[in-house]
Amino acid sequence: MITLNIIYQARERVKPYIVKTPLIRLQNLDEYAGCKVYAKLENMQNTKAFKLRGAMNKILSLDETEKEAGIICSSSGNHGQAVSYAAKLLGIKATIVIPETAPKFKVEAIRQHGAATEFCTVDDRFIVTERLAEENGYTIVPPFEDDLVMAGQGTAGLEIMEEEIPFDHVLVPASGGGLIGGVSTALKESGFEGKVHGVEPDKLPRYTKSLEAGEPVQLESKKTIADALVVNRPGDLNFEVVQKHVDGFLTVSDETMLKAQKIMLMEGKILAEVSSSIGLGALIDGKLDVDKDDEVCLVVSGGNLGFEQLELLEEIEY
Amino acid sequence: MITLNIIYQARERVKPYIVKTPLIRLQNLDEYAGCKVYAKLENMQNTKAFKLRGAMNKILSLDETEKEAGIICSSSGNHGQAVSYAAKLLGIKATIVIPETAPKFKVEAIRQHGAATEFCTVDDRFIVTERLAEENGYTIVPPFEDDLVMAGQGTAGLEIMEEEIPFDHVLVPASGGGLIGGVSTALKESGFEGKVHGVEPDKLPRYTKSLEAGEPVQLESKKTIADALVVNRPGDLNFEVVQKHVDGFLTVSDETMLKAQKIMLMEGKILAEVSSSIGLGALIDGKLDVDKDDEVCLVVSGGNLGFEQLELLEEIEY
Repeated sequence: MITLNIIYQARERVKPYIVKTPLIRLQNLDEYAGCKVYAKLENMQNTKAFKLRGAMNKILSLDETEKEAGIICSSSGNHGQAVSYAAKLLGIKATIVIPETAPKFKVEAIRQHGAATEFCTVDDRFIVTERLAEENGYTIVPPFEDDLVMAGQGTAGLEIMEEEIPFDHVLVPASGGGLIGGVSTALKESGFEGKVHGVEPDKLPRYTKSLEAGEPVQLESKKTIADALVVNRPGDLNFEVVQKHVDGFLTVSDETMLKAQKIMLMEGKILAEVSSSIGLGALIDGKLDVDKDDEVCLVVSGGNLGFEQLELLEEIEY
Repeated sequence: MITLNIIYQARERVKPYIVKTPLIRLQNLDEYAGCKVYAKLENMQNTKAFKLRGAMNKILSLDETEKEAGIICSSSGNHGQAVSYAAKLLGIKATIVIPETAPKFKVEAIRQHGAATEFCTVDDRFIVTERLAEENGYTIVPPFEDDLVMAGQGTAGLEIMEEEIPFDHVLVPASGGGLIGGVSTALKESGFEGKVHGVEPDKLPRYTKSLEAGEPVQLESKKTIADALVVNRPGDLNFEVVQKHVDGFLTVSDETMLKAQKIMLMEGKILAEVSSSIGLGALIDGKLDVDKDDEVCLVVSGGNLGFEQLELLEEIEY
């Protein structure tokens, strides 16, 4: 299982390539959230999402032979962008396997960093990734189920600790469990006294169900507006960490996430992905028992979206 | 003329009512700006603009008789919202004179804080304001030409100094000169070694022209997309301060401001008014001679806009 020490090592490794993102107070959100709102702005990270932390830590840890052979991953989203960007920066050949259904702006974002792209059906993407890895000697950079990836994401948790704000709660968007695994380890092993909660779509409550069952449970895949939180089963490595360090999980509906995204934009002045607005969604829906003086940190995990996606917010009222 | 000391007094006065806004690094804007970009986020101030600082300082300085009689101002914009909000907070009767042409969301924003509203034609607004003030014994809270208002805006400058970042340049959106007057005094009298620049719409270069002439010059009113920067003549008090402390003025076209607003939103993840994006506009148009290692602070003066205004950005390319 990852430890605080492994996260410190990750931080030294990734330091030259990532930024310490702002953690700011957003008092204009307090009346909507019912508490004192802070945001850790990973949407302002390089490649505009936390994903670069983990991908970079993994890639920098490869040996020279592996680096020379190249890397591969399957992701049309923020992980794909992070791997593509990291590979270019480090002069490593990268291939990103993308489902044919991926929106154009995401494919362009991956290509702008120079990675090669391979298209396949959604169902085939992991098989294609493994086949290409085997045929070409590529190393797979997993999106979450990997200690080095999880430790890299945990560096965001170290930065939260450094602010020395006595948070009562930290809310982390969860999908496979890379971010929440890393951040909860960093916080709890550093002596953080508040609570750490994962937040997941109510259509895909894979952690809520798995924690109830005491083991990773595979849910039926369902479509949610939260396109960065679509994993239907916790990673085994991640589940173990989450079980140890996370205080609980909250679930949020698609409708509330959109409302939260609009409030974050119009009142908080921050543009976040709908998936990354899920923490605020949990608060506006009263999913967490908070007092108005409670200090709550929302991890805003990413901000990669096309302008046309803002249209979805037009009719949303709050 | 205002002094650093008057600004320190303002800060003590307004402290309970305003927030120290975030000043953050936005490295994702560097490639567009050609330098290291920071932003002082007054769009995250209470009432979502710097205007509360000055209005609050003015209103808190009134004597009891004046407070009891009530206050008035003419503004459909951020100043009107600030006065309305401050009055409610302090239990003072306020009237806001609004041009009939003001957009609905602005009128609603003023009314939500509880001020009375009076409508008139754009040309009549100052006459109506003065008549109502005289008839009812109201004190006028001026938008910029007033030492207490200017000193209040200057508290944003004190906060910039406190960050202890050795900025090469600070860029401040300018209209009547309240913000640039206050901020430039706070910076220059605190020993700031970088340069302070005002930025104004190229359709209304009232400071550029007035500084050339050596005295305040009245320009013909012109329509600009920068609806918060429409004053056509510097305030006399403001001009004197600006002449002493500001290193220069830059002008920006409407087209560039829209482009800057879109870059600020999509790349910087910050929602700012088009008027408040003018500093980034000056940089992307190369109006300031900067080096890639120069540290430049953009004062993002406000973020009051309706969702429908985002439509203007749809066709903008950058």
